[in-house]
Amino acid sequence: MVSGASEGFSSLNAFDGALLRAGIGDTNLVKMSSIVPPRCQLISPVPLPPGSLVPTAYASITSDVPGETIASAVAVALPKEPQYAGLIMEYSARGSKAEIEETVRRMATEGMKLREREIKELKSIAIELKIQKVGATFAAVVLWEVTS
Amino acid sequence: MVSGASEGFSSLNAFDGALLRAGIGDTNLVKMSSIVPPRCQLISPVPLPPGSLVPTAYASITSDVPGETIASAVAVALPKEPQYAGLIMEYSARGSKAEIEETVRRMATEGMKLREREIKELKSIAIELKIQKVGATFAAVVLWEVTS
Amino acid sequence: MVSGASEGFSSLNAFDGALLRAGIGDTNLVKMSSIVPPRCQLISPVPLPPGSLVPTAYASITSDVPGETIASAVAVALPKEPQYAGLIMEYSARGSKAEIEETVRRMATEGMKLREREIKELKSIAIELKIQKVGATFAAVVLWEVTS
Repeated sequence: MVSGASEGFSSLNAFDGALLRAGIGDTNLVKMSSIVPPRCQLISPVPLPPGSLVPTAYASITSDVPGETIASAVAVALPKEPQYAGLIMEYSARGSKAEIEETVRRMATEGMKLREREIKELKSIAIELKIQKVGATFAAVVLWEVTS
Repeated sequence: MVSGASEGFSSLNAFDGALLRAGIGDTNLVKMSSIVPPRCQLISPVPLPPGSLVPTAYASITSDVPGETIASAVAVALPKEPQYAGLIMEYSARGSKAEIEETVRRMATEGMKLREREIKELKSIAIELKIQKVGATFAAVVLWEVTS
Repeated sequence: MVSGASEGFSSLNAFDGALLRAGIGDTNLVKMSSIVPPRCQLISPVPLPPGSLVPTAYASITSDVPGETIASAVAVALPKEPQYAGLIMEYSARGSKAEIEETVRRMATEGMKLREREIKELKSIAIELKIQKVGATFAAVVLWEVTS
């Protein structure tokens, strides 16, 4: 799980800066909808080879309204029974980190309830930014196979 | 070809619920633009391994306007000559299933006309939902290799 | 690097037509964020197998406002030191090809400055369209492995 925020020359530059701050700015994110394959584990971020295609569930928002606060968050809900998939939820909006993170955790809880799966572990990450000119926030769950 | 519709706690939860009803709620959709590789066949949905990365052409729409009807549809046009690619079209809008499905079929027909390819088979799937609070509709064509 | 523009029966048909004009209309684009892996080279477009999944950084815009001019552009900045990644930027807006292309080149320059990487080569491609009814512009950088 990673997050970042940045101002930039344009919306896309701000997004790019947020990715760099998140530590995945030199990879090619491929956006996916939002499942943790069975038996995956949450690990600390590892360096990814530059230019890699990286399947990622992410939330991002940009704003060019000075003074506005924006935030992005992702939550991961892992199931009690390891043979089942876990769930990722993403949420971005104007508002504070605390609000957006609370919402995304609720979203993940609701999604597991819909699947009738008990939650073993619920983790989230969130970030906020008060806009000066043009800025972006970004929060993500990256799927990556670590060979040991 | 699959479709689903659902209400939910948030837009993304509604989308997630629609995926579950469509039978692909525990996979990671990767959105792609909209071609059927030559010699592909339409098959009945098969179970996909949880958490798989699944290349999918899809239409989806969410709404939080109570009483509004939304619909999503996809159409697949397969060519007479099997060495050519077929075409997928996706369409979502406010409106009835019948209207949206008619439009998406017309879109697929126009796309094949542009390619000067005769259509052997034109199939479509569509779904509608009348919104109570927050809801989503979803229709998709999934590319999947079935090993026998 | 490729680009194309087209009118169409719907927004998606116009987008599809723009892809066909760009020479990649029979492939499945998978949108990615925007890095050139180290040691990649810019090559002239090659034919891609129909239906292939093609990782692509692209800009696209549609409009249904008759008389409006829209444009899409992408820029690629390659670094002086070949062990580093290069950067792709994408931009679409109402406006002329010249304006949009200037902006996207500036975006790529700013992105490399943020990375403190000197630029060896900055290339861009852009296209504009004056809308009659419904139209789309499209500019892209495709990642593809050429086996020789």
